[in-house]
Amino acid sequence: MSLYLYGYWRSSATYRARIALNLKQLEYTYVPVNLAKDGGMQFSQDYTALNPSQLVPTFVDDDEDIFLNQSMAIVEYIDERYEEPVKLVPTHRLDRARVRALAQDIGCDIQPITNLRILRHLKSTFQNSDEDNVKWNKHWIETGFKSIEKRLTNTVADYCFGFDVTMADVFLIPQVYNAQRFGVDMGQFPLIQRVHDNCNQIEAFIAAKPENQADAT
Amino acid sequence: MSLYLYGYWRSSATYRARIALNLKQLEYTYVPVNLAKDGGMQFSQDYTALNPSQLVPTFVDDDEDIFLNQSMAIVEYIDERYEEPVKLVPTHRLDRARVRALAQDIGCDIQPITNLRILRHLKSTFQNSDEDNVKWNKHWIETGFKSIEKRLTNTVADYCFGFDVTMADVFLIPQVYNAQRFGVDMGQFPLIQRVHDNCNQIEAFIAAKPENQADAT
Repeated sequence: MSLYLYGYWRSSATYRARIALNLKQLEYTYVPVNLAKDGGMQFSQDYTALNPSQLVPTFVDDDEDIFLNQSMAIVEYIDERYEEPVKLVPTHRLDRARVRALAQDIGCDIQPITNLRILRHLKSTFQNSDEDNVKWNKHWIETGFKSIEKRLTNTVADYCFGFDVTMADVFLIPQVYNAQRFGVDMGQFPLIQRVHDNCNQIEAFIAAKPENQADAT
Repeated sequence: MSLYLYGYWRSSATYRARIALNLKQLEYTYVPVNLAKDGGMQFSQDYTALNPSQLVPTFVDDDEDIFLNQSMAIVEYIDERYEEPVKLVPTHRLDRARVRALAQDIGCDIQPITNLRILRHLKSTFQNSDEDNVKWNKHWIETGFKSIEKRLTNTVADYCFGFDVTMADVFLIPQVYNAQRFGVDMGQFPLIQRVHDNCNQIEAFIAAKPENQADAT
């Protein structure tokens, strides 16, 4: 079995894939793609051949000859292929749907609006200052977290959905990391904070932290 | 069985859910949520209680007592609950992963960056003109379509993945509708155009078109 994860230490989408791989106790080779250096190594010819979207992460499973982009597709693939030791998407279709929807609240409606390529485009197109960009990110993260905090009142225990870690937690924790980077006051979101603190007691989450990656600077 | 879809005729995320419901030949009650009127009916107290994200669509399945947001979670839920007459997410895990990733290329990396709330925020924050907003949307739609066009070279036949309609098509066709609205030259994307034209021969796709909805203006 040879698994490869192309990503970047600070990319929250890569961070999700790292958590999932760790929770499944899978060995994988981490291949850094430096999004900052020389305008971004994701635009290189080699990486573009692997992933035409020029985004991270890309997951490669040599045995199955699959090259896969999109962190949510990657997490669900890993969850379907390796059922042990934990299921990240629950078995019952109602639970599955709710977990996916919460992950998508982050993976569709927060992260893609606030990532590096958006900030770069805002800067080059509208001459945004760094301060404008921080405001932009805070606005969208807070908007998203407000609705997630409300949703969690119906589902939260130790984790987003009860007492088992799910794909929702795999998405939430990297988004909290980004929220902290951009100065979001997490005091507004006590349930999110609680889930964050609980997850970060787990070795799989700790090992996946950006600062614990080989390419962290 | 009582199914309800809260949405807006022009919302491409709602359009996806309509296509999926039609492909499954399900009867449902369409409840219009006017995103344009009085600053947006999605901000009303009633709708916010149903969906704290204040976005459309929301899907309600009375029998299962489920209120579900996020169009991708909705489509997968419908696909898991109603297996006939077509499967929108294929059976084999590699195929599933690829279909999901392509749907996410649209549902994460194009649509959420180019929707009404983003355009409104650009306008109120940076005093963007309508022309600036059109440029912004064209940029992100074209960026996304360029990579999707490349991916399709490996998978396309009549539809995104071979000869069966999948969730990838359910996501692609509403995005083409948006591309056309914002003046994207579809001549750059012959494979996407071909899939679009083929899908729009199918009654389920035709009935789901924005202009065929009761709330279209």
